[in-house]
Amino acid sequence: MRLVVIGFGVVGQSFAKLLISRSADLYRLYGVNPRIVACIDSCGYAVSATGLDLQRLLNAKKLSGTVGAYDKENRKFDPLRLIEKVDAEMLLELTPTNLDNGEPGISNIIAAMKSGKHVITVNKGPLALAFPSLLELANYNNIKLRFSGTVGGGTPILEFAKRCLKGDSIMSFQGILNGTTNYILSKMEEGLTFEDALNDAKYKGYAEAVPFLDVDGFDAAAKLVIMANWIMGMKVTIKDVNRRGISGVSLADVRRAHKRGNAIKLIATCDDKQLDVKPTELSNVDPICVNGTLNAVTFSSEQSGEHTIIGQGAGGIPTASAVLRDLIDIRNTIFEQRENL
Amino acid sequence: MRLVVIGFGVVGQSFAKLLISRSADLYRLYGVNPRIVACIDSCGYAVSATGLDLQRLLNAKKLSGTVGAYDKENRKFDPLRLIEKVDAEMLLELTPTNLDNGEPGISNIIAAMKSGKHVITVNKGPLALAFPSLLELANYNNIKLRFSGTVGGGTPILEFAKRCLKGDSIMSFQGILNGTTNYILSKMEEGLTFEDALNDAKYKGYAEAVPFLDVDGFDAAAKLVIMANWIMGMKVTIKDVNRRGISGVSLADVRRAHKRGNAIKLIATCDDKQLDVKPTELSNVDPICVNGTLNAVTFSSEQSGEHTIIGQGAGGIPTASAVLRDLIDIRNTIFEQRENL
Repeated sequence: MRLVVIGFGVVGQSFAKLLISRSADLYRLYGVNPRIVACIDSCGYAVSATGLDLQRLLNAKKLSGTVGAYDKENRKFDPLRLIEKVDAEMLLELTPTNLDNGEPGISNIIAAMKSGKHVITVNKGPLALAFPSLLELANYNNIKLRFSGTVGGGTPILEFAKRCLKGDSIMSFQGILNGTTNYILSKMEEGLTFEDALNDAKYKGYAEAVPFLDVDGFDAAAKLVIMANWIMGMKVTIKDVNRRGISGVSLADVRRAHKRGNAIKLIATCDDKQLDVKPTELSNVDPICVNGTLNAVTFSSEQSGEHTIIGQGAGGIPTASAVLRDLIDIRNTIFEQRENL
Repeated sequence: MRLVVIGFGVVGQSFAKLLISRSADLYRLYGVNPRIVACIDSCGYAVSATGLDLQRLLNAKKLSGTVGAYDKENRKFDPLRLIEKVDAEMLLELTPTNLDNGEPGISNIIAAMKSGKHVITVNKGPLALAFPSLLELANYNNIKLRFSGTVGGGTPILEFAKRCLKGDSIMSFQGILNGTTNYILSKMEEGLTFEDALNDAKYKGYAEAVPFLDVDGFDAAAKLVIMANWIMGMKVTIKDVNRRGISGVSLADVRRAHKRGNAIKLIATCDDKQLDVKPTELSNVDPICVNGTLNAVTFSSEQSGEHTIIGQGAGGIPTASAVLRDLIDIRNTIFEQRENL
């Protein structure tokens, strides 16, 4: 399995490390032998038809800030042309999320699909803005598109919903999809003001310097859109979400809720008709009422009742392990389809 | 898909109701068309080569207490001979759990395997006492053995562990596997003594008249054994579990824990070397620290961190939906294998 990797930040580097440590296991247990034949970041690229030396690639990135340093010459390039021209079976699209126009993710994904490459992405932008059309393009080109790492980091929330409830139907779901806001609200329960809790989250590295994507609910809304499309078969984009962030939640609100045995959480809800992200008061004994940076989702099914899944919603190695799961899944799906011909 | 059903209590009847309501969906979505060609309970049986009329079967059971009333004559019978002789692809073994010797479940399962029938069971007895040998027998006869409903009722705990963490490894797990004891301990947190909480659980129908299977941790131990074999590849039986129940937990213990922000739960633990079931003090903010009759399990994985899954651990329709999931899974597995030949 030959891979093109675009974006070589925390997740990309973690994925390379996973491949180094797990390659023997992967072949033995799953019959996959992934090789990165091209790696592209914003400043350069590296290619090798037989597979890049991953340790050397990691060193180049660490020492020079770009994978372009893997070889001396590879500086001038057009990433879309590279994606199209490199002989490979799959693109890993690991560039940062952009919820304004989805770029460069959308163009990268389309270039891969049009040149017959399956796509795994951890980039929420393209899916939040254009899920229905990207899925249609994938189907039209007979391409597999997978994105487990976009929701829940390494926690297999999407897989759980798709694979573990066969013969049953999910009627609705709700959950905490953003770890940063959950951390802030948890700290407010401990007595910090919103501002102090936000600064603490920044200090710990949970919140960005410009934190509005988390705080105003955009990140949770993007994940909600991905889940609604993939799990519920809805055809929606981020514009269809009624969204309210947590900046209006005061310490007094949190304290009042606490006195009632409740907590305020930023809850994303999908009930098959409506998509909402908003601060919501929950009972402390509700299974999704988790603290810190945890994510949690409760699925309400027709026959088997409510199921809650909880895990860390972020992290380099966990999210890279979601990419690896997608890779194994695509490999298995292709093999099954071939045998069905 | 022709089924023999043995045991027609709450789960069996719920399964028949599910088939009545979902048959069109099942064919459309999963290509399965399950027909019950024989149904056996402790007092009689009913057979039909083209499939029993399920509403008539449910009525016979309701009015006469046995499926033998479906036809007037079918009273004298040998269940094992019936399982062997009836032309069918699968046995649903739904008789009650017996942790002394696993019967009649073990004999039913062996009779089915030896006559070439796949087996789905919700009976913990055979698996708790003889998982390694039953799995070996299944493999030897090229038979699929599935048992999702034995752990977590309708909550897909076994499937989650097997299907949602491909490419990762589960290192250990722990959880609340018995809803009755969790209900009792939750009531003790509200101030009831152990005796009063147990009586309340009996009154609500959560605890049996002779409740030692739950209270002394046998039920949790049986489930732990099933998980350890299936998820961790251990070869263990219920004798390998260090087991202590909750009857020694006093109201004073519960109150002391509560003051520390903790709760006492009956926790089953598997760490790849040791199997324990014992009352354990947990932080209230631990995701598995759930109340009422809920079950909860946390899996610790090598790469993607900790994942917790929470749900109701019992119920007729939920457990029947686990049987249905197993049926779809066996159908898919058989078809994949055929295509691999």
